Amino acid sequence: MKDTAVLLIHCPDQQGILASVTQFLNKNNGNIIYLDQNVDRAESVFFMRVEWELDQFAIPREKISDYFETLIARKFNICFTLHFSDERPRMAIFVSKMSHCLFDILSRHSSGEWVVDIPLIISNHKDLEPVAKRFGIDFFCFTKESITKEEQENKEIALLKGKKIDLIVLGRYMQVLSDHFVSSFPNEIINIHHSFLPAFAGAKPYHAAHERGVKIIGATSHYVTADLDAGPIIAQDVVRISHVDSIENLVRKGRDLEKIVLSEAVYKHLQRKILVFNNRTIIFN
Amino acid sequence: MKDTAVLLIHCPDQQGILASVTQFLNKNNGNIIYLDQNVDRAESVFFMRVEWELDQFAIPREKISDYFETLIARKFNICFTLHFSDERPRMAIFVSKMSHCLFDILSRHSSGEWVVDIPLIISNHKDLEPVAKRFGIDFFCFTKESITKEEQENKEIALLKGKKIDLIVLGRYMQVLSDHFVSSFPNEIINIHHSFLPAFAGAKPYHAAHERGVKIIGATSHYVTADLDAGPIIAQDVVRISHVDSIENLVRKGRDLEKIVLSEAVYKHLQRKILVFNNRTIIFN
Amino acid sequence: MKDTAVLLIHCPDQQGILASVTQFLNKNNGNIIYLDQNVDRAESVFFMRVEWELDQFAIPREKISDYFETLIARKFNICFTLHFSDERPRMAIFVSKMSHCLFDILSRHSSGEWVVDIPLIISNHKDLEPVAKRFGIDFFCFTKESITKEEQENKEIALLKGKKIDLIVLGRYMQVLSDHFVSSFPNEIINIHHSFLPAFAGAKPYHAAHERGVKIIGATSHYVTADLDAGPIIAQDVVRISHVDSIENLVRKGRDLEKIVLSEAVYKHLQRKILVFNNRTIIFN
Amino acid sequence: MKDTAVLLIHCPDQQGILASVTQFLNKNNGNIIYLDQNVDRAESVFFMRVEWELDQFAIPREKISDYFETLIARKFNICFTLHFSDERPRMAIFVSKMSHCLFDILSRHSSGEWVVDIPLIISNHKDLEPVAKRFGIDFFCFTKESITKEEQENKEIALLKGKKIDLIVLGRYMQVLSDHFVSSFPNEIINIHHSFLPAFAGAKPYHAAHERGVKIIGATSHYVTADLDAGPIIAQDVVRISHVDSIENLVRKGRDLEKIVLSEAVYKHLQRKILVFNNRTIIFN
Repeated sequence: MKDTAVLLIHCPDQQGILASVTQFLNKNNGNIIYLDQNVDRAESVFFMRVEWELDQFAIPREKISDYFETLIARKFNICFTLHFSDERPRMAIFVSKMSHCLFDILSRHSSGEWVVDIPLIISNHKDLEPVAKRFGIDFFCFTKESITKEEQENKEIALLKGKKIDLIVLGRYMQVLSDHFVSSFPNEIINIHHSFLPAFAGAKPYHAAHERGVKIIGATSHYVTADLDAGPIIAQDVVRISHVDSIENLVRKGRDLEKIVLSEAVYKHLQRKILVFNNRTIIFN
Repeated sequence: MKDTAVLLIHCPDQQGILASVTQFLNKNNGNIIYLDQNVDRAESVFFMRVEWELDQFAIPREKISDYFETLIARKFNICFTLHFSDERPRMAIFVSKMSHCLFDILSRHSSGEWVVDIPLIISNHKDLEPVAKRFGIDFFCFTKESITKEEQENKEIALLKGKKIDLIVLGRYMQVLSDHFVSSFPNEIINIHHSFLPAFAGAKPYHAAHERGVKIIGATSHYVTADLDAGPIIAQDVVRISHVDSIENLVRKGRDLEKIVLSEAVYKHLQRKILVFNNRTIIFN
Repeated sequence: MKDTAVLLIHCPDQQGILASVTQFLNKNNGNIIYLDQNVDRAESVFFMRVEWELDQFAIPREKISDYFETLIARKFNICFTLHFSDERPRMAIFVSKMSHCLFDILSRHSSGEWVVDIPLIISNHKDLEPVAKRFGIDFFCFTKESITKEEQENKEIALLKGKKIDLIVLGRYMQVLSDHFVSSFPNEIINIHHSFLPAFAGAKPYHAAHERGVKIIGATSHYVTADLDAGPIIAQDVVRISHVDSIENLVRKGRDLEKIVLSEAVYKHLQRKILVFNNRTIIFN
Repeated sequence: MKDTAVLLIHCPDQQGILASVTQFLNKNNGNIIYLDQNVDRAESVFFMRVEWELDQFAIPREKISDYFETLIARKFNICFTLHFSDERPRMAIFVSKMSHCLFDILSRHSSGEWVVDIPLIISNHKDLEPVAKRFGIDFFCFTKESITKEEQENKEIALLKGKKIDLIVLGRYMQVLSDHFVSSFPNEIINIHHSFLPAFAGAKPYHAAHERGVKIIGATSHYVTADLDAGPIIAQDVVRISHVDSIENLVRKGRDLEKIVLSEAVYKHLQRKILVFNNRTIIFN
């Protein structure tokens, strides 16, 4: 596998964007190995993800951003982010007491399914420290008893910035993050909510689903924003239930949904396949 | 196929109900051809549907209800309803302008897939009169211009009672029914809502789904109660969407969901497979 | 809605195709309103669907094919087909005795959901003539008693060619078409098979599914080729079943799958969203 | 939670079975906490699972089997198995090189989601020994180089019998078991096949699925019998794919299906919710 660069682009829709971007890459010997684009007709916005090989590319990687800004982006009023395939994302996992999402993430990391570094796990409970140890990952525990929430979050932010974390995954972390914390990691915190959002936002969604008598339950992964459970949705999945399912059974069935939906979202993020626009996600193929 | 009787039962859970009911039928030569039961452990309620052949049954059909009440139901504090397979339900369909649910229902009726009489279609618009005519069914139109809502509903109730209607199907009927109307047909009005309830109750759910950026949309059929879109859910189904789907595309994909989910609910009702308890449904196998 | 042209393209993958095609359209004032493309890396083939508005397009519509062939296609060894949005496809429906697919198609046609002409229905049984009449469509019946299969097919081909039919939909048509018939309408015959192909190809798939004890059944729509049930798959869907489902119940659940999956395939075909390559389909977004 | 007993029953259908069994339990003060039954009308067979509390039950647990056989089973020609909730099943896991199923099973075991003992893991490759060590479970490796297949299986059988294993889970174990091995553990070996059986039985199903151009892929868990991939199916699930998915992508999506479907099957087995009859499974609610 050769090293590649990835551009994620959005801009007001207009003629010639696609031709200009592909020509820019072609002319400079960038072999395109992936291109996906689409236009939101209602809002007249163009979205694109393009990936090309760097080995023959005429522009040195540290100058690509500057050249693209000058030669293409300004003309079309393009917002873009640029990533390189040899950048290894650095992920932190936040957990509380439930282990299913944590095990699923660590298994994928451990087996090499995901190319990512996981320097630390943070929790508000001690319960999962043995799991962290088993996988050889540092575990930091901040309990409410010993510290205010503000102090806790400040310590966490310092820790995360110190470790150069660029993705925080909340694996059934049962504590609400402050606006200050959330705004320190914009579109870099992925949560799993154990319902089919926007249904049953907030606490105890399986109880609420049982009470309402729905015939299908779901799980939703999303970027965390200041509004609780209202950030851009990345992935959702559902499973059928019936009147014979007790709440305990919903919780059991939900666990499998939660871990798979969360991991799907994290995978898409790691692949740089997600673009956030207007509190919604474009998930490229 | 022999004529059968169906009992739908619920009562406080206690030892011996199942044995007593099945013995009652066995002793009187009622050959059981279907039995499904379950217990809600959390609320300690027993639910059951049992169907048996009438030809050798020792108790005449007009006395079954009385005997069952006296010999079994009182002892266990059982609520029950009794149905016979040779009763042909009488259904009215309410529609507005969209035809997909209407076509689906009339096709099933016309092909003999459903054993039901449909003496009339009621609408608040004239648009679908040609469809009714094509299938040879009486069409009654009440528009807001000529009549108050109260007058309209009173005429409709008189018409429905006159035709001995025992099931009203709202096939994308875009007008809210009054409490008076709803209470005249308890658990006898089935609606299709074009969202995965309780998400996006009320008007324009596809617009709301698009705005929220969900990755799955759904449809929900339910019995109509005084609370809008809050009655007991009978059936739900979902379909995946993505950022490339415009609102028009959601509407298109949703139509197929709506007609199938509504027809599934009507079928279960016609089969006497639904029991309503605490604003939830038990859907027997 | 302005009139548009649609190009469906495939060719060996190489640098510059996308840029060349989009430039060709841009330079000649063709406003692109849709573009979807992808590359099969394993086989190194480029696929694309592009749609643009004709009103300002510099090249007259009758010359587009010639110009595109000369200026672009030859250079990249492109195979392409060109369609115009104001062409109204002409569809024939073949049926036997079951009506659910026929009703579904005629309902969509009748409600204007599909923009298509349906000049005739052909059958090997008389059963569905009343349905055709109800929707005002000519019905031709060829039974085995009165005619050999070869004579029957020759008459059908003459009829279809005479009516300028360019899409044949087999709505549970229970007779195998000869190679001669199939080769007269390449990639223009869509069938629905009542199983999740390639499982349970051939006769009585629901019986076979029940016998095997599968937990999910399906339906498959595909283009018809000389090999029975082996043509390019367009759409598939599934539904869960359990040990309590009798064969009759599989048939009932399957009917809903069949009609929805068949109609989905026909819709994609009518939208010119399907490209066939190597006995597989590319289904554009 | 009180200790319970579970009866799994099947017999020729006839009047009075259900009443007799429930009376037998009621009369002896067995409080029924679960009952699910159904009748296969086509084959006239009655199936049932009943679970009751032991604390007040009049018959000592070691005599239940004898009493039930004498008083009930003989009369109705019932085949039954009896289980107790305090029996802790003993499971062995067979793996080759892929870790996703192994991680999923060990995570559930480690978190207490499953109440089961896992005394050993057996493999034909050394790759996953570190995973076994991480979870503190004995790992035995038999490679083809050092030993014939017959010797290997004899050693494995001795090991499994020595450890009193009563469930063998093949977590993507890529070696065919001999008839001798399989017949030593009837309905006690659960495999996961990476396709929607019966489609794509045998080797390389993802390659075959890609070649055939299916729009949905699946995974199937089943009991292993002498016929390869033809044993009774326990659970299946599917996921949508499209023409943009490479074989590598099918493998990636399939991994999640495989682990969830395998674990679902194992869970049902551990719960004593599965009855095998005529190479099919009855999966109680």
